[in-house]
Amino acid sequence: MGKTILLIGIGAGDPEQITIQAINALNRTDAFFLMDKGASKEKLNALRKDILDLYATERPHRFIDGTMPEREREGVAYDAAVADLNARKLAVFDRMIGEELGDGETGAFLIWGDPALYDSTIRIMEEIEATGRHDLSWEVIPGISSVQALAAKHRVTLNTIGGAFTVTTGRRLVQGWPAGVDTAIVMLDADNAYASLPAADSIDIYWGAYVGSNDEILISGRLDQVADEIVERRAAARSANGWIMDSYLLRKRGP
Amino acid sequence: MGKTILLIGIGAGDPEQITIQAINALNRTDAFFLMDKGASKEKLNALRKDILDLYATERPHRFIDGTMPEREREGVAYDAAVADLNARKLAVFDRMIGEELGDGETGAFLIWGDPALYDSTIRIMEEIEATGRHDLSWEVIPGISSVQALAAKHRVTLNTIGGAFTVTTGRRLVQGWPAGVDTAIVMLDADNAYASLPAADSIDIYWGAYVGSNDEILISGRLDQVADEIVERRAAARSANGWIMDSYLLRKRGP
Repeated sequence: MGKTILLIGIGAGDPEQITIQAINALNRTDAFFLMDKGASKEKLNALRKDILDLYATERPHRFIDGTMPEREREGVAYDAAVADLNARKLAVFDRMIGEELGDGETGAFLIWGDPALYDSTIRIMEEIEATGRHDLSWEVIPGISSVQALAAKHRVTLNTIGGAFTVTTGRRLVQGWPAGVDTAIVMLDADNAYASLPAADSIDIYWGAYVGSNDEILISGRLDQVADEIVERRAAARSANGWIMDSYLLRKRGP
Repeated sequence: MGKTILLIGIGAGDPEQITIQAINALNRTDAFFLMDKGASKEKLNALRKDILDLYATERPHRFIDGTMPEREREGVAYDAAVADLNARKLAVFDRMIGEELGDGETGAFLIWGDPALYDSTIRIMEEIEATGRHDLSWEVIPGISSVQALAAKHRVTLNTIGGAFTVTTGRRLVQGWPAGVDTAIVMLDADNAYASLPAADSIDIYWGAYVGSNDEILISGRLDQVADEIVERRAAARSANGWIMDSYLLRKRGP
């Protein structure tokens, strides 16, 4: 029989931004793996429960808790810290799939945004499969990412006509504007990398936090004119909510 | 009262890859604008009709035909040809919204993939709004893009750990690998740009055509080992179907 694992993209926060394919997958699932941690855990689990209450209505399901340690943030190189975290996640996945999911059952990870975008679950499932320890098959179901929700709300395109764009991280953006593109899309920026870019008067920013949720904040404009406002609003929201989920698009102005 | 225009992302071909938000938007719509043209028109309109039959069931709707001229492909610079096409599209939009949509009505564009990704409708709506000729409001509803459908089917991530990636076109890829990234995602490649990349033995490709449809083809592997197969399968499929919709992800192999 074997076990089936579904990696289900459930959108970036707006419960309506889930696909029929994802809903059908929710209703094939016997057990949902819960992996959230940290300050966002309570809010994200509540959002997740809203989604299951709305859509996973066709059969009973249970939850399997995947207690995860926090990533070391101080004094450890980013790649090494991620690799260490992923090794520990691998052990947790191995236990959950091996011991807590029955033969013939389907387990699912509910992944914010798209499972292919800055999420480790696909990589860990590749490793799980490579161990050969489990008789399993697995599928990925794409989801609307925070970047797409952001672009839709700002009614801005990701690319200029015939142009290219780079999707990158805050850590990379502080090293300079991505080469060869007029548009940069930035995720995972904990330190306001946009605020230290040179030539900010020639860049437009489209920023958003908690896009699609009741806490949504949207700010756009010329970077030199709105950067301070974003820094302030971002800090206030992070303080009020205990966590923040934000992303932004930067575009160089034409001549 | 005014008029409302919805730009609805309807996914990349799999009718299940549509969101609840998009379905709700379909059911707010009085009139759908039909813009398809060329060899793909018949198949795309059939797919579109499948989607409306499945989901736009709550109220009657009608269609407004937006006859569009083909883009000049020979002897015209790409940007100029696109700009010319968009000027003509602007006139068609203006007529459809001004003359064929009534006050208080909602009209919708059904956009394959995501309206923010290599689609001109957002830009044209900005121009329509800027003319000030219509009392209108407009919304963008994101959709699963072909790239996301591709990545899900190949179960591959868009980024490496902490990495950046560039989304680009075939025209740009022939000028060289995008700077500063280990991953390139290529859309709008009519001329097999992947097949002329240097150092193809150090690149993996994940290619797909008509992803999510019954005609789906998926090929992946080391670029030097599968490029010829992709060129052949692509030409055969294009010949058999009269058109092709494909995209691919390229990743440089680690050391």
